[in-house]
Amino acid sequence: MKKICIIHGPNLNFTGIRETSVYGSQTLDDINEMIRNSVDQSVVDVSFFQSNIEGEIINQLQALHHQQVDGIVINPGAFTHYSYAIRDALASISIPSVEVHMSNIYKRESFRHTSVTAPSCLGQISGFGAYGYVLGVLAVLHGSA
Amino acid sequence: MKKICIIHGPNLNFTGIRETSVYGSQTLDDINEMIRNSVDQSVVDVSFFQSNIEGEIINQLQALHHQQVDGIVINPGAFTHYSYAIRDALASISIPSVEVHMSNIYKRESFRHTSVTAPSCLGQISGFGAYGYVLGVLAVLHGSA
Amino acid sequence: MKKICIIHGPNLNFTGIRETSVYGSQTLDDINEMIRNSVDQSVVDVSFFQSNIEGEIINQLQALHHQQVDGIVINPGAFTHYSYAIRDALASISIPSVEVHMSNIYKRESFRHTSVTAPSCLGQISGFGAYGYVLGVLAVLHGSA
Amino acid sequence: MKKICIIHGPNLNFTGIRETSVYGSQTLDDINEMIRNSVDQSVVDVSFFQSNIEGEIINQLQALHHQQVDGIVINPGAFTHYSYAIRDALASISIPSVEVHMSNIYKRESFRHTSVTAPSCLGQISGFGAYGYVLGVLAVLHGSA
Amino acid sequence: MKKICIIHGPNLNFTGIRETSVYGSQTLDDINEMIRNSVDQSVVDVSFFQSNIEGEIINQLQALHHQQVDGIVINPGAFTHYSYAIRDALASISIPSVEVHMSNIYKRESFRHTSVTAPSCLGQISGFGAYGYVLGVLAVLHGSA
Amino acid sequence: MKKICIIHGPNLNFTGIRETSVYGSQTLDDINEMIRNSVDQSVVDVSFFQSNIEGEIINQLQALHHQQVDGIVINPGAFTHYSYAIRDALASISIPSVEVHMSNIYKRESFRHTSVTAPSCLGQISGFGAYGYVLGVLAVLHGSA
Amino acid sequence: MKKICIIHGPNLNFTGIRETSVYGSQTLDDINEMIRNSVDQSVVDVSFFQSNIEGEIINQLQALHHQQVDGIVINPGAFTHYSYAIRDALASISIPSVEVHMSNIYKRESFRHTSVTAPSCLGQISGFGAYGYVLGVLAVLHGSA
Amino acid sequence: MKKICIIHGPNLNFTGIRETSVYGSQTLDDINEMIRNSVDQSVVDVSFFQSNIEGEIINQLQALHHQQVDGIVINPGAFTHYSYAIRDALASISIPSVEVHMSNIYKRESFRHTSVTAPSCLGQISGFGAYGYVLGVLAVLHGSA
Amino acid sequence: MKKICIIHGPNLNFTGIRETSVYGSQTLDDINEMIRNSVDQSVVDVSFFQSNIEGEIINQLQALHHQQVDGIVINPGAFTHYSYAIRDALASISIPSVEVHMSNIYKRESFRHTSVTAPSCLGQISGFGAYGYVLGVLAVLHGSA
Amino acid sequence: MKKICIIHGPNLNFTGIRETSVYGSQTLDDINEMIRNSVDQSVVDVSFFQSNIEGEIINQLQALHHQQVDGIVINPGAFTHYSYAIRDALASISIPSVEVHMSNIYKRESFRHTSVTAPSCLGQISGFGAYGYVLGVLAVLHGSA
Amino acid sequence: MKKICIIHGPNLNFTGIRETSVYGSQTLDDINEMIRNSVDQSVVDVSFFQSNIEGEIINQLQALHHQQVDGIVINPGAFTHYSYAIRDALASISIPSVEVHMSNIYKRESFRHTSVTAPSCLGQISGFGAYGYVLGVLAVLHGSA
Amino acid sequence: MKKICIIHGPNLNFTGIRETSVYGSQTLDDINEMIRNSVDQSVVDVSFFQSNIEGEIINQLQALHHQQVDGIVINPGAFTHYSYAIRDALASISIPSVEVHMSNIYKRESFRHTSVTAPSCLGQISGFGAYGYVLGVLAVLHGSA
Repeated sequence: MKKICIIHGPNLNFTGIRETSVYGSQTLDDINEMIRNSVDQSVVDVSFFQSNIEGEIINQLQALHHQQVDGIVINPGAFTHYSYAIRDALASISIPSVEVHMSNIYKRESFRHTSVTAPSCLGQISGFGAYGYVLGVLAVLHGSA
Repeated sequence: MKKICIIHGPNLNFTGIRETSVYGSQTLDDINEMIRNSVDQSVVDVSFFQSNIEGEIINQLQALHHQQVDGIVINPGAFTHYSYAIRDALASISIPSVEVHMSNIYKRESFRHTSVTAPSCLGQISGFGAYGYVLGVLAVLHGSA
Repeated sequence: MKKICIIHGPNLNFTGIRETSVYGSQTLDDINEMIRNSVDQSVVDVSFFQSNIEGEIINQLQALHHQQVDGIVINPGAFTHYSYAIRDALASISIPSVEVHMSNIYKRESFRHTSVTAPSCLGQISGFGAYGYVLGVLAVLHGSA
Repeated sequence: MKKICIIHGPNLNFTGIRETSVYGSQTLDDINEMIRNSVDQSVVDVSFFQSNIEGEIINQLQALHHQQVDGIVINPGAFTHYSYAIRDALASISIPSVEVHMSNIYKRESFRHTSVTAPSCLGQISGFGAYGYVLGVLAVLHGSA
Repeated sequence: MKKICIIHGPNLNFTGIRETSVYGSQTLDDINEMIRNSVDQSVVDVSFFQSNIEGEIINQLQALHHQQVDGIVINPGAFTHYSYAIRDALASISIPSVEVHMSNIYKRESFRHTSVTAPSCLGQISGFGAYGYVLGVLAVLHGSA
Repeated sequence: MKKICIIHGPNLNFTGIRETSVYGSQTLDDINEMIRNSVDQSVVDVSFFQSNIEGEIINQLQALHHQQVDGIVINPGAFTHYSYAIRDALASISIPSVEVHMSNIYKRESFRHTSVTAPSCLGQISGFGAYGYVLGVLAVLHGSA
Repeated sequence: MKKICIIHGPNLNFTGIRETSVYGSQTLDDINEMIRNSVDQSVVDVSFFQSNIEGEIINQLQALHHQQVDGIVINPGAFTHYSYAIRDALASISIPSVEVHMSNIYKRESFRHTSVTAPSCLGQISGFGAYGYVLGVLAVLHGSA
Repeated sequence: MKKICIIHGPNLNFTGIRETSVYGSQTLDDINEMIRNSVDQSVVDVSFFQSNIEGEIINQLQALHHQQVDGIVINPGAFTHYSYAIRDALASISIPSVEVHMSNIYKRESFRHTSVTAPSCLGQISGFGAYGYVLGVLAVLHGSA
Repeated sequence: MKKICIIHGPNLNFTGIRETSVYGSQTLDDINEMIRNSVDQSVVDVSFFQSNIEGEIINQLQALHHQQVDGIVINPGAFTHYSYAIRDALASISIPSVEVHMSNIYKRESFRHTSVTAPSCLGQISGFGAYGYVLGVLAVLHGSA
Repeated sequence: MKKICIIHGPNLNFTGIRETSVYGSQTLDDINEMIRNSVDQSVVDVSFFQSNIEGEIINQLQALHHQQVDGIVINPGAFTHYSYAIRDALASISIPSVEVHMSNIYKRESFRHTSVTAPSCLGQISGFGAYGYVLGVLAVLHGSA
Repeated sequence: MKKICIIHGPNLNFTGIRETSVYGSQTLDDINEMIRNSVDQSVVDVSFFQSNIEGEIINQLQALHHQQVDGIVINPGAFTHYSYAIRDALASISIPSVEVHMSNIYKRESFRHTSVTAPSCLGQISGFGAYGYVLGVLAVLHGSA
Repeated sequence: MKKICIIHGPNLNFTGIRETSVYGSQTLDDINEMIRNSVDQSVVDVSFFQSNIEGEIINQLQALHHQQVDGIVINPGAFTHYSYAIRDALASISIPSVEVHMSNIYKRESFRHTSVTAPSCLGQISGFGAYGYVLGVLAVLHGSA
């Protein structure tokens, strides 16, 4: 049994409320439910975490290290573009991680075209809506950089 | 039955030969075989195309438009970083496309950190080796931007 | 009766202590008192919030959404210049907001000349000391972008 | 009695005609009327000036110096972004000035995000439509940088 | 009968005098004469305007709006590279406009390679000497963006 | 009799199919027909060439040199923005050339605002739809840099 | 007796765990022990603080102001490179501060070559491993900018 | 007898009033008087011109061409930094010109460190107060580029 | 016997025709003849290839890999400045390569001052006309990076 | 006994004379005396060197290599910001080196914010006046990168 | 009697030999002779110094401080553009200095358009050939910043 | 008999000592010996010069002018990247010069990718170790720009 934690960054708890033309009308609970249903639950045990506070995400990443989680799928939200602290946290733990964005970051404002956190991940997936998290779980299980 | 074409850009026919520390030792035929075996062949009919010539990739994209293909998974290789012509070709046809890179582009030279072709795709997947193509096929089938 | 919340970002609880040549000698309580006295309390009900923690400001913005506040006047302090997360939070709630700076940001260090949060607000007011908050309340009530 | 002059820069005489989706349908005369009616005429005597010619605005600023006006509210229009000559003129006279923009400059083309004239003013107000001028008059009367 | 106004910006009244190796030896009157003779005068009524003063060009553009001119051919001269005020004036009137440069701007100093006024025009023509104005008139009559 | 060749770059064979809001609904054959009909066929003999392959356009330019063509009207499409090789090819042959863009390049993405090929041409025309090619032919015949 | 507080920023609680090739194998407790033993405890009373949360570090800096601490040695970790809020906090309290980095920031990724927090400190020490904290304490006691 | 015209750009008519710590307390009339007295009036006939309007300076430069003046000493004030139109005007007339700044432009804001007008002059003199104009007259008479 | 292939990039087949002031009047056949005569044919077997098509040069590089050539001397022409695809091709084959430019790239337009292909070569030689190819052959035989 | 050489770069022989508000009133001899007295002379043998000539500093660094000195403390003065030659010299000898600046380089002109020499040193110390040299000696003795 | 030293930087001893189209055919001795003859020798005592070595120029500047010279006229040659060490030396001595360039630096390569040494001088004179030194002497005697 | 001088810049006298992985283990004397032995001594008379001092290299270049040397092969070391003074010196003498780098500058730190001295040379050779000097001598003898 593989343990994988899905981490949602700032404002993602407002998904389904905020800017539905960009992110769709599913709430975060809907999305988590969909992710859980999409993976093979005999193989993967998914848990979920959300915070608007950068440092609490770092605290969670360190906790996952102590819990010996097998993989992380993280959508750092806006922190993607400036949180060198999350980048360092991802680098300092030894857990394979995948960065996911629901929207295609290359189609949005230019500050969203780059990621300071991706260099500490196996890879990045962007543009496939909530389904991107499912791809992220598969990537943790089967992909190799 | 969904028709999906996998397009490999320049130098990818040397995969398994070139820089195996970056790209692994599978040949392109091995990878194509793996992709075909990884998808549900009762649902998806995958075909393959490779060229080192930018304009031939554009010709192929236009041909796929006439063949009414359902989706494209494209690894533009080095063209990712400067081929505005492939970007325009992807935008001018109406086929959902996914950009795939085997390596994590954010871990390599800085010129590889950006993509001029991704704005014409549904999204981008990078960093999961050859398995990224399988994720790309799934993204075409299930993802929505 | 209109409900308006005044949000003070990091270090503003040290106003009147820190760099008084830049910000004056009023404490934050003095300023809040002044704001309350300057608005027509039969029309506007002002509340106040201060935090040094970026994510708590996001939490507060989301809470104001649930409280159905009519307007926000926010001085994001230094977060103005890099918190894309607060920018996203302001965009994701539907409350008219005004960005206020006590000093003229164009007269200070160059990194303060730009705002990443202002694009999610109705507008921006800078350079009029504590009175800027009063202007901000008026702008929420009477201005239209 | 305080004398305050409102200066409208280039193209603002076409307000209500040009790009009404950006600036609204009030004409400049409507706006001036609204400003006059919004201020306490027993305390403030407002006058108005408009020119499309950069140097005539400088001439007017110098004339206001000789007329010993108490304050200036200026919307430099497009000159905001390149007229170092108006910046110098504002700096060379000793009259408190406020820069006003009807639209939120941070929501428009990137060249409009910065101001070369604001460093010579008390502060800047942008994004509140014609009401911004009223805020500007209040800022001249009550604000201190 | 279509009314079209040709606007010549700063220093163009010195054409034929200044730098003849770049602009040729025709005077501005010669050029205007040539333009008038090159168009079909039963269809087009051309008028001419020249000024060295940026704001007078804006005044003229506004006057042409009131005169209900059908098209404008403008050579903004050096204003091309910094006059956001002329850009705004062109955008604020509803007359199809064409930007013309006698020399090829891409062969000259790098500051001349870009235009801040062209985004408010139908299009731009550069490099064909005085004949460019004739092309400009044709473009106003027959081209569509 | 003057021989002029019209060269269409990558993706232009999809005109009328792709992004019709930008390029209109005429096909490339329609456009070529329109060009032929618009010029005085007793004076000008127009031929046409299209390729998606950068090097084939260079081969064609060299062939036109050997055929002693009198002029070239070229729309390099996306190659405009990075093909230093086409720039060199245009410079190395002695045929007067005109660069044409159907859309106004200054109104589109910023990477399209500049041209690396234009310095090797007489001049550039952009923004007048398919009619721009007709202007290009006229410019070759009558314009002088 | 001088009171000095050592502040460790984000991820430093993982020192000895994370990237030991860069930071060595000492844990943060080992390092704090070493610092305490290296200073003259009859003269200096050192205390320690660590947090992954930017705003808690600001809260701590403000608390030290109220505790009338004599000096601060701070390793802001990744916050060094973007936390203008910590910069403002350091500037707003009147305690001499020294910035310390265990690694030589000039030998690492380019985003680490600059510091937004250092302008609010007496000075900066980087590259001497955990011993840098001891140098920092000495610098607070004996250095003058 | 050599005719030399001294041209003062925008705001220079406020010299002695504005920012006297930068420009000294002499008025422009004092300065002109000083210049006239400093040159050998049997050899040089100096005249003076001042305008705040860019285009009037261009008109004056063209008038000087027709008056066959022998030299120009020009302080373009803030126009130095953006008036490509004055640059073109200076280039289009055949009169030796010298650019003068009273303050040392390299000691002021960075936008003042460069000149777009100097390439059209013999040379530039900056930093010597009003005496710089006298040096400028000497440079016109005796210097050669 | 060492096998070395000389590869000429785009437009080099026009050497001797194009811009003879830059490249001299020898044709490409003359140059190839000169190279063959300059090397010791008992030791080195030189072959030649020219193409204007980027992808054909990549195809040729891959073919040389299969032919087990001992060295490559390549003049990528304008591709030097943007063909990341040729860079990747050179890196993916294991043959020592030398980049040659006939002109001194540092004396030409600024875009020619850098090379994206050189990092995949042993080294670069520029500025010695056709003789540079002979130096390139010697460098392949005797140089070591 | 450890041999350590203190190297003072250009203008440091004027310390105590030049800009005493920045560097204090101690002369260089005073500083050297202070350094010698501050270190444990039974353990460390300090020597001193000063030159205004970049190449003599390189000569001295090479001499120290031959003298088998144990450590270097170097204040490269203005050479810090452009002397790649000193950077190479420091890298080419095998002696642990520490870069020291008396003032806090982050509080001064922006060109002083970066160091081209620091990447060849163990680390850098800036902002603690002459006491920084003493810290530098300690860093050589006890620090490890 | 005022003592003024003229300092010539690198390569200026080759004036009259090197690039005479730029610098004229006078030798440095001719120029020095001309300077001496042009000043009033009853008032000014001029001396001369030339070196190709940056640090020797610094040594000379320091020596002039000890000799209590009244003024310096310096042509730093190419050091103008990168010698922060000479900038510091000029700032550290208390002698009024003037920077002179024989050619107009704004008409040459772009790296010559700026000066890192000028901020430490009273002002700068460029473009008047050897006569610029005479202007420099006058500026030292009569100009005030 | 042709006289050619080989000039080695800063730190090259440490070749064989410093960073042997980059430069190999030959000493500078070994290299000079190898060069002498590689050229045809009946035709070429090679001499050698090394200095760490920029200005001494300029002095030597000027001396070679007086000695009427036939050619120069220069490795400016780190001066390549900032010594505009050596660039000027090379330009001011009339001797054909070749710039040589032992390592491939495009494979090293980005500041080494450009050369400010190369524009004053016939051409540049980089990446072939010590053999590059031999190529440089051949280039002086046989190459033409």
